[in-house]
Amino acid sequence: MASLKRLLLGSPIRTARLAHERLTKKTALAVFSSDALSSTAYATEEILLVLAAAFVAQKYDVTVFSRVIPVSIGIATLLIIVAISYRQTIHAYPSGGGSYIVAKDNLGTMPGLIAAASLLVDYILTVSVSIAAGVAAITSTFVGTRWAWIDEHRVGIGLFFIAFIALANLRGVRESGALFAGPTYAFIVSFIFMIGYGLVRYYLSPHIAAPNDIELKIAEGYHPQPLTWFLLLAAFSNGCAALTGIEAISNGIPAFKQPESDNAAKTLTVMAALLATMFIGTSVMAYLYKIHPHEHETVISQFGRIIFTGYMSWFYYLVQITTAAILVLAANTSFADFPRLSSLLARDRFLPRQFATRGDRLVFSNGIILLAVFSGILVWAFGGETSRLIPLYAVGVFLSFTLSQSGMVVHWWKEGKALQQMRREAVTEKDIAITRNQSGLEDNVTGKLEPLRLIPSTPLTIAEVERLEKSSHWRKSLVINGIGALATCIVLIVFIATKFIHGAWVVVALVPVLVLMFLKIHRHYVEVARQLSTEGLAPLQPFDHEVIVPISGIHRGVIAALQYAKSIAPHHVTAVYVNLDDEQTRRLREKWDQWGSGVNLVIVASPYRSLARPLFNYVDRVRRGSPNVLITIVLPEFVPAKWWQNLLHNQNTLFLKGALLFKKGVVVTNVPYHLEH
Amino acid sequence: MASLKRLLLGSPIRTARLAHERLTKKTALAVFSSDALSSTAYATEEILLVLAAAFVAQKYDVTVFSRVIPVSIGIATLLIIVAISYRQTIHAYPSGGGSYIVAKDNLGTMPGLIAAASLLVDYILTVSVSIAAGVAAITSTFVGTRWAWIDEHRVGIGLFFIAFIALANLRGVRESGALFAGPTYAFIVSFIFMIGYGLVRYYLSPHIAAPNDIELKIAEGYHPQPLTWFLLLAAFSNGCAALTGIEAISNGIPAFKQPESDNAAKTLTVMAALLATMFIGTSVMAYLYKIHPHEHETVISQFGRIIFTGYMSWFYYLVQITTAAILVLAANTSFADFPRLSSLLARDRFLPRQFATRGDRLVFSNGIILLAVFSGILVWAFGGETSRLIPLYAVGVFLSFTLSQSGMVVHWWKEGKALQQMRREAVTEKDIAITRNQSGLEDNVTGKLEPLRLIPSTPLTIAEVERLEKSSHWRKSLVINGIGALATCIVLIVFIATKFIHGAWVVVALVPVLVLMFLKIHRHYVEVARQLSTEGLAPLQPFDHEVIVPISGIHRGVIAALQYAKSIAPHHVTAVYVNLDDEQTRRLREKWDQWGSGVNLVIVASPYRSLARPLFNYVDRVRRGSPNVLITIVLPEFVPAKWWQNLLHNQNTLFLKGALLFKKGVVVTNVPYHLEH
Repeated sequence: MASLKRLLLGSPIRTARLAHERLTKKTALAVFSSDALSSTAYATEEILLVLAAAFVAQKYDVTVFSRVIPVSIGIATLLIIVAISYRQTIHAYPSGGGSYIVAKDNLGTMPGLIAAASLLVDYILTVSVSIAAGVAAITSTFVGTRWAWIDEHRVGIGLFFIAFIALANLRGVRESGALFAGPTYAFIVSFIFMIGYGLVRYYLSPHIAAPNDIELKIAEGYHPQPLTWFLLLAAFSNGCAALTGIEAISNGIPAFKQPESDNAAKTLTVMAALLATMFIGTSVMAYLYKIHPHEHETVISQFGRIIFTGYMSWFYYLVQITTAAILVLAANTSFADFPRLSSLLARDRFLPRQFATRGDRLVFSNGIILLAVFSGILVWAFGGETSRLIPLYAVGVFLSFTLSQSGMVVHWWKEGKALQQMRREAVTEKDIAITRNQSGLEDNVTGKLEPLRLIPSTPLTIAEVERLEKSSHWRKSLVINGIGALATCIVLIVFIATKFIHGAWVVVALVPVLVLMFLKIHRHYVEVARQLSTEGLAPLQPFDHEVIVPISGIHRGVIAALQYAKSIAPHHVTAVYVNLDDEQTRRLREKWDQWGSGVNLVIVASPYRSLARPLFNYVDRVRRGSPNVLITIVLPEFVPAKWWQNLLHNQNTLFLKGALLFKKGVVVTNVPYHLEH
Repeated sequence: MASLKRLLLGSPIRTARLAHERLTKKTALAVFSSDALSSTAYATEEILLVLAAAFVAQKYDVTVFSRVIPVSIGIATLLIIVAISYRQTIHAYPSGGGSYIVAKDNLGTMPGLIAAASLLVDYILTVSVSIAAGVAAITSTFVGTRWAWIDEHRVGIGLFFIAFIALANLRGVRESGALFAGPTYAFIVSFIFMIGYGLVRYYLSPHIAAPNDIELKIAEGYHPQPLTWFLLLAAFSNGCAALTGIEAISNGIPAFKQPESDNAAKTLTVMAALLATMFIGTSVMAYLYKIHPHEHETVISQFGRIIFTGYMSWFYYLVQITTAAILVLAANTSFADFPRLSSLLARDRFLPRQFATRGDRLVFSNGIILLAVFSGILVWAFGGETSRLIPLYAVGVFLSFTLSQSGMVVHWWKEGKALQQMRREAVTEKDIAITRNQSGLEDNVTGKLEPLRLIPSTPLTIAEVERLEKSSHWRKSLVINGIGALATCIVLIVFIATKFIHGAWVVVALVPVLVLMFLKIHRHYVEVARQLSTEGLAPLQPFDHEVIVPISGIHRGVIAALQYAKSIAPHHVTAVYVNLDDEQTRRLREKWDQWGSGVNLVIVASPYRSLARPLFNYVDRVRRGSPNVLITIVLPEFVPAKWWQNLLHNQNTLFLKGALLFKKGVVVTNVPYHLEH
């Protein structure tokens, strides 16, 4: 077992090697944007799938699918609002502003836990959705070939990828530029090239279109229905999957080169611009080439096939491969985020503390394993189909967006209040001229970072307060985050209205359950700490020993245990034998004089052939007889040389040990006797 | 858990209630014959299935199936030979002559173990075959109705029956007349009535025959081939399944009313006669009514349908129900035999001793569970089809028959030798007149039971030896058992020749594996007994204590453990702390002066964040430093109030306990600190 673990995971890594690599903007974009950008691979398709319900109902009216353009523009607008909103968070929380922290800091513990629960759920879904979409990118390339049967093995391939990523993360994948930059930039470049090439080809020969004889696919759970506002909102909800992952940069600010916040904000802007371009571009392509969603092929694969013909057809495969690769990387992002968030929760005592400890390879192994198991179950349960997972997806993300943005609103409001307070308390410059040099305030005032946190103990001058007010822009920031909070909140309501019956109810039901679990765990830890605290502990009373040795006969192991017992309490040892067979008991009595080491032997009856019950009754009798003694039970145990030999012995000692653990006022001592071969 | 067990199995039963019910011949017949008689439900069909291969090859030549008659007569002859042979065993082993005991007593341990292994395998197969055949009797009644789909659920129904029987046996089914007599006699009467009625109907209107348009079934693994001697032998081998269970009475002699052996022998005769009649009758019926084996219906069900028409058709259902019932009872027989044999093996230390202990309900629970699991796996693996299980079946039984009969030959030979020896040593009557009255010999000499075992220490008179010789008939018995051994041995060879490739190889391969396992287990127990023996044990040397307390911080549990450690060895206690975090270690040092109870604190480094490794290294250093001390490791442990709370704590103590168990010269003591709610 241990050597298999070594082979798969490598040797343990020293704690001292826990250090951070600082990323340039270019590599940071690669590291943090795979989740967000990869969603362009399926977001347009998810919109089309809903529109397909109206397409069928309205007698294959092609104009139905043209609605993908306004829906996509709506989503892109939302994307820009959220991105601007998150830029505020990046500046306010330079040490990393995940939704859990922002919501907890500003709104309180409960909103923080709700944000955490919804994020955990969404990290699991990110893995499942990305892997399912990545597998679809691969299987799509085989449509129409004699390898088309590979489509039936989506689940198997998906589980393989999840296992592979989990293993790589258990070994400890660094969020290294080398790993991420290649696939991410290859994807961005080839994808944008595909859109550009597609546009050019369309204007050169606009008659090219997708074949009509495909197996049309409608979103799971939607029956043919006319194109209503509700259906458009449902399409919008599905497409919002494009926004997931946009919060990644705000979690990872400390990984940027200095100045961290500025670099992070710039990277976020670039990422949002790329995402909006690629997403709108994909939707436009789908519209121009009249692509319909297909049962066995992705939308991207369909127009890749149409536009890349002849000597360009190798480019089709390049797009499919880079798409699959970035989707796998996107799943990998969750394998960093999920364990990180669970370790934060565990440190705050809302999850079992095992999630806060790093394994052999310096990674949070338990979180990685849990994520792999749950996302694997989802892939399996939903048959590895992206479109069946989408209704559950993004609900958690938008709930955490809303909480996080609302938290930022409160943050700016508090900052405004604090500045007003400072202005009231401000003094003239010369009053504090001396104190100044000691407090090292000058540096903090010039910097824009976290003015509130650096409020000095000495009052500021009026001029300084004015400079602080100017740098914090709290009013403008409050409005921006307010708009962000409002927009995401509305979208969340739209989600619940349109996706609830299709699967969002699972998430809605799960979040409160998780929060209750967090609270129950927290209560337990607090209670344990209170009970174990040395606070108010009186000096312990001296106590008398009383030693009981349960024996199963006379053998070397028993004799060793008796000797040990006598060394602890020479005159307070009793051997107890449970009579299961009169004949054996008689023989034991005979041998006792010679081998009993002078210890008092008590034989107890056992009408039901149980070992533990009569023994426990005896222990209880002794305790009732002299309540002030501490009872030590010395268990003789022989240890076989090989593990399988344990199967050949009654595990009475093991069983007794387990049962005695729950008896109060009893100390259990094991005296092992080691057997050879 | 415990309460579920109570609900299913009932309350524990006192050991004192372990007593035997004595059976009259009539109830004994019911108890012991279900296994043997029930095989008439499928034995004829298994012959026909093989003949069907020739039937197809020879262009549906109906005369092929007429060979069922000579084959059945051959099997019945073998049955009579084996029955006569077993009557000898019954007289020679009045306390129960199972093959294991007879072979071990007379041929040695290895043959005994081979017999035991083959019997264990066959008990498992008896359950699988009987249940599969019982399910077939049920599903056959639905053929041609709208419930015909039930046939697809054979496996499920079979597993349900096995679970039910296992549960009933875990509760402790008495081999009571009340339970067995009803179904067994109902089966015998209705079956014999069916045969009689069938004969009468045939002679009244011989034109009735089975329909020809059925789905003909050929035995699994047989392709169409001409009717050769080899195929006839294969049919014979398959039909020999009829003989399984005939040894049951010889295992259960002590359950008979006195005189046990006579009653048992008479019952065996009646059983063999019934079995021969019913089996030949079934084959004759199948021949007369031209029954062909059917894919979805048993042979019995087919002619039941043909002969019971009109107002007699309810009788068809009666036969099917009683057939299913006796097959379930037959499986139940193995649930008594398998655990009994494994407990014998366990008592002789060839199987883990857990098989020799009776559970709460006075039954050998482990054997019952093992049998249920293995037979369930077989039913599942072979799709619940009797005919696919048959090639594996009866091989073990005939191997044990052969060994047991050969053992009896040796037994009689030894008896003959001993009598010759006695005759040489015989004296005249008056020489021992005085001794006689004290030894109580008279009674033994007049009885026929076990003359050899009762050889008195005082020599016999010539007249007495002659009476013994006359009563033992050792020459005649030797010849009878010799014929039995020879016949079963030949059949065994035929089995292996005809069934080997069809599945018998599994049994042939399994038996030596099991025997090797028995021997390995035996060697282990002998070795343990030797190592633990008090023989040659020198008085133990006095030793010094050295106590190590691994701590994870300072809390009430740790303080209690330190106090306990000091009470064992006031001046030899060391607390060991593994440094995983410098800051925490610093805080511990600060608190140590106040709460350390004056104990020496050692802090060890752990570059790989492991707890156990640095601790073990420290223990090893201490041991090397002073090899004559006994190291006691006192583990502080806090015990949560509820079991699920254990999930919230690192199981470090548990893990350390497990790992320390394998360290020699180390005693582990647990000082629990019990938490409330």
